[in-house]
Amino acid sequence: MAMRSMWKARGCWSCIRALHKGPEAAQTPQKDAVKRVFSGIQPTGIPHLGNYLGAIETWVRLQEEYSSVLYSIVDLHSITVPQDPAVLRQSILDMTAVLLACGINPEKSILFQQSQVSEHTQLSWILTCMVRLPRLQHLHQWKVKVATQKHGGTVGLLTYPVLQAADILLYKSTHVPVGEDQVQHMELVQGLAREFNKKYGEFFPVPRSILTSMKKVKSLRDPSVKMSKSDPDKLATVRITDSPEEIVQKFRKAMTDFTSEVTYEPTRRAGVSNLVAIHAAVAGLPIEKAVQQGAGLDTAHYKLLVADAVIQRFAPIKREIEKLKTDRGHLEKVLQMGSVRAKELAHPVCQEVKKLVGFL
Amino acid sequence: MAMRSMWKARGCWSCIRALHKGPEAAQTPQKDAVKRVFSGIQPTGIPHLGNYLGAIETWVRLQEEYSSVLYSIVDLHSITVPQDPAVLRQSILDMTAVLLACGINPEKSILFQQSQVSEHTQLSWILTCMVRLPRLQHLHQWKVKVATQKHGGTVGLLTYPVLQAADILLYKSTHVPVGEDQVQHMELVQGLAREFNKKYGEFFPVPRSILTSMKKVKSLRDPSVKMSKSDPDKLATVRITDSPEEIVQKFRKAMTDFTSEVTYEPTRRAGVSNLVAIHAAVAGLPIEKAVQQGAGLDTAHYKLLVADAVIQRFAPIKREIEKLKTDRGHLEKVLQMGSVRAKELAHPVCQEVKKLVGFL
Repeated sequence: MAMRSMWKARGCWSCIRALHKGPEAAQTPQKDAVKRVFSGIQPTGIPHLGNYLGAIETWVRLQEEYSSVLYSIVDLHSITVPQDPAVLRQSILDMTAVLLACGINPEKSILFQQSQVSEHTQLSWILTCMVRLPRLQHLHQWKVKVATQKHGGTVGLLTYPVLQAADILLYKSTHVPVGEDQVQHMELVQGLAREFNKKYGEFFPVPRSILTSMKKVKSLRDPSVKMSKSDPDKLATVRITDSPEEIVQKFRKAMTDFTSEVTYEPTRRAGVSNLVAIHAAVAGLPIEKAVQQGAGLDTAHYKLLVADAVIQRFAPIKREIEKLKTDRGHLEKVLQMGSVRAKELAHPVCQEVKKLVGFL
Repeated sequence: MAMRSMWKARGCWSCIRALHKGPEAAQTPQKDAVKRVFSGIQPTGIPHLGNYLGAIETWVRLQEEYSSVLYSIVDLHSITVPQDPAVLRQSILDMTAVLLACGINPEKSILFQQSQVSEHTQLSWILTCMVRLPRLQHLHQWKVKVATQKHGGTVGLLTYPVLQAADILLYKSTHVPVGEDQVQHMELVQGLAREFNKKYGEFFPVPRSILTSMKKVKSLRDPSVKMSKSDPDKLATVRITDSPEEIVQKFRKAMTDFTSEVTYEPTRRAGVSNLVAIHAAVAGLPIEKAVQQGAGLDTAHYKLLVADAVIQRFAPIKREIEKLKTDRGHLEKVLQMGSVRAKELAHPVCQEVKKLVGFL
């Protein structure tokens, strides 16, 4: 399994580098508001290279850039498709270990388990009563997902974008890192914030997308598609916890073309360009430097160089994950503390919402 | 406004006398389980005669017959259609006053406000992830409601039967008083209980309907339809808090036929038979006795006799409502205490559910 995002039922939820703000930024001044980042990740397995470079690295950076940051392990989202309870429980702890090992600092970021903060579903219900059915039925991801589910999707799969909106608005979040494929969902969140404010008076900041622009990591076996946890070809996807032997094997078998030279031409030479992009990202190099390091090597040798860069990058993370996983109590405590801190923020907002709606 | 039920977005939710158990009773033995009644009422105005004789009288009786009884003011359901927040807040307290005045004893019954027990929406989300969309779209009440709403119904209006299921199952309720028009929704609740038990092991009792059999109170202006809070003809509906003058006026104008004799022939003489049924119910008489009391009177005089019986029945309730409404603090305290007691039951069940699902 690989990491799954809250933003769609399967797949990772943000791309590599948060570089620019969307057009939203200019339209909705948030003066005097606390800047607060919210993001979520589904607890459904060990993240792969694409997840790591796409989402987790960004999360680690954002906790340095923003004073208030919340990262949620969104277990409520994970049950929109069937889960084995024992596997899910383990995956929640595994994901906690992975995030800590990758550099999420629970002192700087509030790292918490969504289902432990009851306000998420409370606000979600209130927002559910503000959305018309066609609004959700027209979302691209619902159309795609319902087509792939046996007997059609569950109602949870239809309504989870509203729960997402609650996740974000519950903390009066101002900034949300998203990939381009989640723009539609962010529009729903922004629309709900505006509609609530219009009906009950200015209350929620309209959250801005932190759009991510770097290209996604591609499958090692088919560079025309994204690296994915659900790829049936085991060699297509490199996981953070893969052994060095597995990583070398996967890169050895990576699909390239019949030109042995190393160049970066994503359109014409997608396979080798994917290797260059991975190399540059894990080694922290500009693309040109990565190409330079491959100069004189044929692709077979360059694959080993990239595999080695990945192994080096993941080695300390892998060791840390293994260490953390031996102390289940510690992981549970981290989540518990995070949930307490999240609830401290969520509870007063939820109470205010209840007052505005007329419950209190 | 008149009372609205949780079971459908507009209308009262159970009929007059809980007389027999549905076929469900024989199929699902609940041996050794605590017998627990759950019911809910929407806080949207002063109940009318039909609500009183249909639901509230039954509630008062059930609290004597069952050792564990929960009655919820289901404010979360009320927002499935637009509400004015100030009116909603007042209506929650008004409904509390009405129920207490009608004889709901907060020592015997747990009387509470749904939105104050966060477990309702938590369980609702989990159940939402177990239902397929067509299951809800095929429910008769959704089809009717969506047709009457501007721009189609909200998603809350579609999914509230799942919240209903959570309301009931959260307390491991065994018995639910329902009218015949709610049979479809109870089937959903029973189906979800069975599906949950099948997936996670025997956990929820499959709740039984307490079906109500006495005919509904009809409109005074058109005895072919039910008495309803939303009737555009103000004379059609008698509210608990109407003044004696209003009650007399409404009965004077009640539609009957051109025969002056008092008889009970619901099919042939719906108008006068409705009066006889109301008379019998409020005076606690068998139908034949009510007809006997009308013997020798023409319908004009019988109307005054029925009006007087209604006035006598409502007078002490009306006085008590007025008294209770002067002490807002008391009403708030009753709800608060009820919510604490409800949460004491709901929390451990919700925690168990979370363990079973894999969150804990």
